[in-house]
Amino acid sequence: MTPSSARHKTTRRRRNDPEGLRARILDQAAKLFQKRGYHSTSMHDLVQATNTSAGALHHHFPTKKAIALAVLAERIGPLVKETWIDPIQQAAALDQGVAHVFNEIVLGIKKRRSVLGCPLNNLALELTLTDRDLRQGIEGIFSEWRSVLAERIGRTTGGAGVGERERVAAANFVISVYSGAMNMAKATQSPGPLADAAALLTQWLREHHFAE
Amino acid sequence: MTPSSARHKTTRRRRNDPEGLRARILDQAAKLFQKRGYHSTSMHDLVQATNTSAGALHHHFPTKKAIALAVLAERIGPLVKETWIDPIQQAAALDQGVAHVFNEIVLGIKKRRSVLGCPLNNLALELTLTDRDLRQGIEGIFSEWRSVLAERIGRTTGGAGVGERERVAAANFVISVYSGAMNMAKATQSPGPLADAAALLTQWLREHHFAE
Repeated sequence: MTPSSARHKTTRRRRNDPEGLRARILDQAAKLFQKRGYHSTSMHDLVQATNTSAGALHHHFPTKKAIALAVLAERIGPLVKETWIDPIQQAAALDQGVAHVFNEIVLGIKKRRSVLGCPLNNLALELTLTDRDLRQGIEGIFSEWRSVLAERIGRTTGGAGVGERERVAAANFVISVYSGAMNMAKATQSPGPLADAAALLTQWLREHHFAE
Repeated sequence: MTPSSARHKTTRRRRNDPEGLRARILDQAAKLFQKRGYHSTSMHDLVQATNTSAGALHHHFPTKKAIALAVLAERIGPLVKETWIDPIQQAAALDQGVAHVFNEIVLGIKKRRSVLGCPLNNLALELTLTDRDLRQGIEGIFSEWRSVLAERIGRTTGGAGVGERERVAAANFVISVYSGAMNMAKATQSPGPLADAAALLTQWLREHHFAE
């Protein structure tokens, strides 16, 4: 790089649209991590998938770990919010909210005809033991998900009658049922376990007066 | 290799204990797949971990896939049988059997002070989309686990009163709760979600008369 182009780099908006490239890298990384896993995706794969240069990729993200941290914060966190947190907060009744979430996921699987699994769980299982920073990124998303569910449970008749400890345990139970059913759906490449889980979980919520 | 040593190989029991080596390869492979994942474990890693030669490793297993299939059939299948299937079949009441299984897993985690996750789920999430043979190996273990649970549920008051479809759904629910709680335990490196899940799942079994 010449001194002139280096100056341009910091002073002018470049023709190659750095923000667009950054977003494209994160989109492709989220997709490849979900499909192949983090360890099986190389920086070279990401260069190819985003149709860019190694230099441009490294300019945005010096390491694959930096990409994974950004994928967690800017792609998976917002996806959990959109798929789970918002519908739960907006639903008139919690059992209806949970039924809606599972139903949308089952419809997505049927449309795609393949079960890629939950992006958070896929990365969580692969990365938890790899690195402390990545684990914290993953824990942060689980923690937000759990606390919104526990708070929503607190606004039901059953939830109002139990302590914080029980509300958190119930929130963990809801996430566990979903996450385990998604594991089995992925292992068997069928949405069946998710549909089974949705029916029994919403029934459980009603039985414990965690619905309204 | 000289013709003479080649003949020895097929006609005599070798001094280097081929059966012992095969078992050692599977033990180390199961351990490394569990800890690092299948894709992050190379044949070279396995040569080093078993303190053998590349030739001896390839003699037993020509490919890493062959090792994974043997790990599923000879290590993970028996482990699911020992950890889950046998205690469930032997328990006087199903809720007690499930409580025992979760309790043993929680104790193991506390002793080890780290949550490696469920070996079947770890491999399932990583390999399902990789290869058809591996998926079939994984599905076979889930299928055995599910059918034993459904059969055991059929021997309870509640289970005897519902159809096969409901018994299978209940079995899927039990496996989902365990598997999802283990995911979260791994993500947070704490046995808490498993303990929460055990309490709520055994209560659920009793509420549905799936205990006795």
